Formats: sequence, C-alpha cells, structure tokens
Amino acid sequence: MTLDKFFNPKSVCIIGASRNPRKIGHVILRNFTETFGGKIYPVNPKAKKILGLKCYHSLEKIKGKVDLAVIALPAQIVPYILEECGEKGVKNCIIVSSGFRETGNTKLEKKLERVIEKYDIRMIGPNGLGVYDPYSGIDTIFNPKHKLGRPEKGDIGFISQSGAVMCISLDWMSMRGYRISKAISYGNATDVDVPELMEYLDRDKKTKVICLYLEGLKNGRNFFNTAKKTKKPVIVLKGGKTQSGRKSAKTHTGALAGKAGIYSGAFRQTGIIEAEDLEKMFDLARALSNQPLPKGNRLRIITDAGGFGVLTSDWADKFGLRITKVSKKSKKKLKKLVPEHATLGNIIDLTGDATSEMYEACYRDAVRDKSVDMIALILLFQPPLIKEDLVNKVLKLSGKKTTAILSAGGDYTENLKKKLEEGGMPCFSSPKRCIEVLHALYSYSKK
Amino acid sequence: MTLDKFFNPKSVCIIGASRNPRKIGHVILRNFTETFGGKIYPVNPKAKKILGLKCYHSLEKIKGKVDLAVIALPAQIVPYILEECGEKGVKNCIIVSSGFRETGNTKLEKKLERVIEKYDIRMIGPNGLGVYDPYSGIDTIFNPKHKLGRPEKGDIGFISQSGAVMCISLDWMSMRGYRISKAISYGNATDVDVPELMEYLDRDKKTKVICLYLEGLKNGRNFFNTAKKTKKPVIVLKGGKTQSGRKSAKTHTGALAGKAGIYSGAFRQTGIIEAEDLEKMFDLARALSNQPLPKGNRLRIITDAGGFGVLTSDWADKFGLRITKVSKKSKKKLKKLVPEHATLGNIIDLTGDATSEMYEACYRDAVRDKSVDMIALILLFQPPLIKEDLVNKVLKLSGKKTTAILSAGGDYTENLKKKLEEGGMPCFSSPKRCIEVLHALYSYSKK
Repeated sequence: MTLDKFFNPKSVCIIGASRNPRKIGHVILRNFTETFGGKIYPVNPKAKKILGLKCYHSLEKIKGKVDLAVIALPAQIVPYILEECGEKGVKNCIIVSSGFRETGNTKLEKKLERVIEKYDIRMIGPNGLGVYDPYSGIDTIFNPKHKLGRPEKGDIGFISQSGAVMCISLDWMSMRGYRISKAISYGNATDVDVPELMEYLDRDKKTKVICLYLEGLKNGRNFFNTAKKTKKPVIVLKGGKTQSGRKSAKTHTGALAGKAGIYSGAFRQTGIIEAEDLEKMFDLARALSNQPLPKGNRLRIITDAGGFGVLTSDWADKFGLRITKVSKKSKKKLKKLVPEHATLGNIIDLTGDATSEMYEACYRDAVRDKSVDMIALILLFQPPLIKEDLVNKVLKLSGKKTTAILSAGGDYTENLKKKLEEGGMPCFSSPKRCIEVLHALYSYSKK
Repeated sequence: MTLDKFFNPKSVCIIGASRNPRKIGHVILRNFTETFGGKIYPVNPKAKKILGLKCYHSLEKIKGKVDLAVIALPAQIVPYILEECGEKGVKNCIIVSSGFRETGNTKLEKKLERVIEKYDIRMIGPNGLGVYDPYSGIDTIFNPKHKLGRPEKGDIGFISQSGAVMCISLDWMSMRGYRISKAISYGNATDVDVPELMEYLDRDKKTKVICLYLEGLKNGRNFFNTAKKTKKPVIVLKGGKTQSGRKSAKTHTGALAGKAGIYSGAFRQTGIIEAEDLEKMFDLARALSNQPLPKGNRLRIITDAGGFGVLTSDWADKFGLRITKVSKKSKKKLKKLVPEHATLGNIIDLTGDATSEMYEACYRDAVRDKSVDMIALILLFQPPLIKEDLVNKVLKLSGKKTTAILSAGGDYTENLKKKLEEGGMPCFSSPKRCIEVLHALYSYSKK
C-alpha cells in the first residue's frame, strides 16, 4: 500500500520541532514522544535537545532512514524543505503549514507539486491537520491535548476536508467514547486526495466504516467510481449544499461545492449514506460497525416508560418501520414474569415496576422471535427496581440482533450508557435518533 | 391563586412515610427533609420517628394546620385517606399512587372524585409524580436523587402528562445545567388539569416559558382557549401523533391522542410552538427565556472554523434566514484587527488564528450593526490563541442582541460552555440546532 508509511512508519522526523510549548512544532513533537513507538528525529537548526530528544540541525544530519517527515514551518520555506526531503530519500511527507492555494498563493503550491513529482514523494496537505492514528501513535494534530481530546482505538475511519471539523469531531468523540481507527485531514489535497484515502481505509483491517466530511471534490468522477467499488459502508456529510453554504465553502477551502441535488443523487447511486450532521454521521457509523444488519423492517419496542414508548412509536411510524405485536406464544410465556399492569401488545411496556430480570426475558424473547428484525430497547435506569446488573444482562445478548438502546437522564444514566457502548451497544438519548439509526441500518441492508 | 398551596405550602404531611429506604414513602419524606423549609408531618401508623422526625399514627393526631398532603399508599385505601384529609380540612392533595383509571379501575377513581367534591379538595394525580419546585423545596418525585438529578432554580415551567418523561427530563436537565421554575406530572388529571396549570404558570413570576408534554386532552376546547390567552411562550411536544404512537398512548395514559394534523393546526392557531423532541423543546425554552426576540431574519455568522461556517450557512439557507454581508464600514474597521487571511464577507471567518480580542470586536460590531437581527457565534475553543477570557468578553454583551452560540468538543469545551450558559447564552453542539433555535425565535417574534 503506497499510503501505508503515513500510518505505519518506523521512523519520523518533525521538521520545525520547537522548544517553545506554544508553537505547533512543539505540540506535534510532544504528541509523538507520548504515543509513537518508532524512532523520532526532531529537526531544528538552533536546538540541541527538545523534550529530551537529540535534535538535528538539518535533515541531512540524520544518519538513519526516515519513513515520514512532518513539516511544520512557514509556507514560504516549505518547498525548500521538501526538496531536502527528496534528497534524503524521504518518500512520505505531511505538511500542516497553511498559506498556499487556499489564500490565493497558487504559485507556491505549484512549487510543491514540482518537487514531489521530481522526487516521487507522496504528500498529505498542505493546509491540513494531517494524520491521527491511535494504533501506531501517529498524531500530527497541533492542538494540545488538554484542549482537544483524542479518541481511543476503534474501527471508524474519518477523512475530513476541514481541519477544524476533524479536530472538533475527535474532541467530541473522545468525550463521548466513540472510537476510531484513523483520521485524516487532507487539506488542499495537492497530492493525496479522498479517493485514494478511501481505498486505503477500505483495505485497512482496523477500519469497519468510513466517514467523510466533504465540501467539494477535485475529481468527482474518480471519487464516485472509487465509492462504488468500496466494500465498507461510507457515510458522508456534505458541506456547502445551499447557496450560502457554497459561498462560505468557496472562501474556506476554495472548493466548488456543486449543486446539492446532483451530489445527493450521486451519493445514493453509489451507495454512499448521506448524513445531515456530524453527530448523526458518527452515531450511524458506530451502529454500522457493531450491529448486525437487519433482515427487514419489523421492530420490537420494549420500554419501562410509557411516554418514551409513545414517542418512539411515533418515530417508527414516521420512518416507516413496522412495529410487531407480541406473538401469542411469547405473551403466554412473558405474562408470568411481568407486572400485572404491564402491556404486552403493540409494544412491551414493563412500566416503572420493571426489573432487570423482566428486561432480560423480553429482550431474549425478541432476539429469538423470527418475526422481529430489530429491537428498540428503551432502557431508563431511573425506576426503583432496575439495578445496574441490567447492563451485563443486556450485553450478554449483544450482537445477536440489530439493537439500538434509548436511554436518557443524568450522570448516573450516562455512566451506565458508557458501559453499554463499550460492550458494543449503540445508545441514544432521543427517540428520534434511536429510530433514525435503526432505519438507516435497514436502508443500508437493502443496498 | 387556588393552586398556590401545591407549590408554596407552609406545612406538609406525607401519608405513607416509611422507614424502609426502598419505599417511595421514604424517598419522598427524605426529599422534603432535605429541601423543604416548612413544617413536615410524616404519617405512619406503626413508626414513632422517621428520619429524625416525630411520626403521626394518623392524620387526626396532627394538631397544626396542614396545607398540603402527599399520599403514597396503595390505590385501594387512597379514597379513605382522602376522606380523612377532608375531615382534617386539608384542601390540597397530591396522590402519587397508581392503579386507578389507567389500569381500568375507573370505579376507584370515581370514589376519589366524590370525596374531593364533598370536601372541596384540590387534587393533583393520581398516577403522576406530582410536583417539583426548586424554590419552595416541594419534591414528591419518588425516584432517589442518586439515580435522578434535580435541576436548579430557573425560569422554565414544565407540565407533563407522563411521569417518566418528566423525571427523565429533569435528570437530563440537571446534568446539562438547564434550570427550572416548576415541574408538574399531573397523571390522570382527575381534578387539576393542564389548562389550570398553564394558567397558574402564566401568572407565576418565576416562570418565563411554559413547556408541555401531552399525549391527549380531556377537554381540548378548554385547553386551546387557555393557550390563546397565555401571555408567556408555550412549547409543546405531542406524543401519539402517528397511528402506532396513538395505539401506544392509549395503553399508556388511556388518552385518545387525536389526529396529528388537527392538533398541529390548533397549536399553530393558538400560538403554541410545537417541538419535535424533548431536547429541542428545552433548548428552545432556554433561548426564549434569556434571549431578546429578533426584529427580523438577518443573520450574522462569526466563526473561527471554516467548515462550521459552511455547515451553519447551509442550515441558515434551509431555514430561510438571510445571511448579512459585513458592511463596508465594519469591514474597514475590523480589517485592522483580524488576520490577513480572515474572511470578512458573507460570513466572518477569523480562522484558526483567531484571538479572544478579535471575537470580541466582531461580536460587538454585529451587536451594534442595525442591519443584523441575530447572531450565530461559532465559538470553537480549540485554536491555540483562543483563551478562556473569551467567555467573559462574550458575556459582557449578553442580552444585547439575539445570539446563539455553536461550540463543540470535549470536556475542556463543555466546561467553558457551562459558564456561557450560566451567563445566559444558549449554547449548541450542532449547526442545525443553533440555526433551528434562532429560526424559532424569529418565528415566535412574528406571532
């Protein structure tokens, strides 16, 4: 894989490494010292040591082989440094500097193009945040960790045209416990572009789902051809879908965002799932990565709170999912276990007297029932008889049938939800989002 | 005000107070000992003392006047206890017990009706959680506090047909820092019903916005007539809007949920704002309680992240808000302050080099600019030069012009957002929600 050295290099040099903790060249070097297991070469013409590492005054002073160079220097000198990389035989460069085409400086960007062609260098950037890979410890994000959290190892791959969208998503994901395989902010895509990254993630064993934030495309045909061939689910959030959005996109990434309808149509045709916002994209990505796909749209709703049962039924109807009645056989069996005033009809409402054991029995029944394709498990932890052991009871059945959990509340609930999520159960706070994701899984299953 | 004793009694008796921490009569008594400043009389025929308070074997043993009785006993004996309340001269009763009309036991409910008529008692419930009032310390919610948080004093009033929807909302609000004036779960509405509660909250000085969760109405005409007269904003979430939802509602609260279209039309005609889900309802409530209403739909977007500017522009277009260009005068003034590569056009993009000072200047300019009706302040705290003092700089201008803040990320960001929210600035994590709320404020301003 030609791109593999960006994610799994054995040695990295940080050109522009700095002693000043406020400089981005310092933050990046610190990231690598904290997480990267391979050889690290800081390059700075003035320093002898930075963060305890021997510093090199220039690239040519480094004796060993360098697999990847990260360049964090002012735009003007980047072409010269890239030239040095070429001479040293470094074949992979990430350029986080900005001040190229995106600010009108197309000449400078052309210079980069000439150098990489001359030396056969592969380049990510400029004007991007580069790469975050929690497995290999590559982290070229220049925002310090106390301000911007990094998500743990997982299976969502994320490619973003916007650096800010990528880093804010990572920060949010790290807080919410979403886990990722790789994230790439490719900036101006002067060399490495979305299709190639998508192909790489499709072959990457650690990635199960590919998420994209796009504003425009350099080569739409190439993108859609690649998307069509991609075996893993691809979810896209497209920025610049309206006239105002397009105007903003033009000044942002210089991208011609194209007409909304054309994009949406092409996404559909090539099997790409379109998301409306970032949270929805990652919610869906997580469900796609850990839930089996449903075989149909027949839904069982189990709840301990009538109101949430009502709201969830409403959304099921709006999204065209079919709520399955409890079968006579199941009813007979479950009736002995549930409270007298529980409902075993259109939905199962265990009421505020629900116990962990009742949930387990009803969930198990739904998993076994062949007339049920997917389950919305409304799991409110506030009723008095619900105990924390319910988490493990539910997780025992994890992965057996498409399930989305709806659970809402405060800190007590959030802690239990985290455990469910770590065990592979997607959890949501709103009936709409819960059903929306089940519906998206169903739609994808028909692809 | 006839309902005032439910919220501001001087003395309360808890009938069914229990020594057993797992019983609801214990939890309710504990709530009162922790937050209620008036006289508390636990009633239990077997105990001498509970939680350090002298216990009364029956209501008649209490010498003093009792303003409010909270009844937490099995359904069958509630009519007899209510009779005792009548004889003792207690005029306000909250009945949290269930097992009446909602389980088919209409006879038992009729008994309640006869007793309250005989003694001229006002009753909230049965089959509801009753009242939570953070100002007076009334708290009849029988879910223990470690499982279910209580929000702080604020100005959102909430009336809920579903007990679970109320308590889960309160739990969620307490975690997210939403503040409330009063919350009422009225259960079967055998006596006190929504219109009267709505009227009460409309006159209540601590309430600025009224939120409702409804499944069905006993007397629609009365409800809509009251709504028309209500001076404060009313936001409703209607459960049971679809066929499946109606089926679930029928088994839940026994309410005939009615056709969706009829309700929505009547809500519009009577000036009620309809919300799609709970989070949206409270997001909008908060903005309505602390933001001035806009005079038009002209929007200024200020950002430090291009991608979020693009996404926010997209949503502004979709919701029909007009993005205002920066005026020539403002441009001239601001140009000296912002980075060279910043955008001062369709939107203001300060880029990742934004400082707190730049934000302050651009926000102040938008507040002063008469061609701007509302402001979407995209405040991402991750860029290196943004400092925490930005929070205070923004809060200095709080309340001067309709503003919604879009800010997303992890713990660092969430802490700063909490400060902004405590200072009266509504904050959102998604471009859609930010614009949606601004649009709702605009729609309400035209009412």
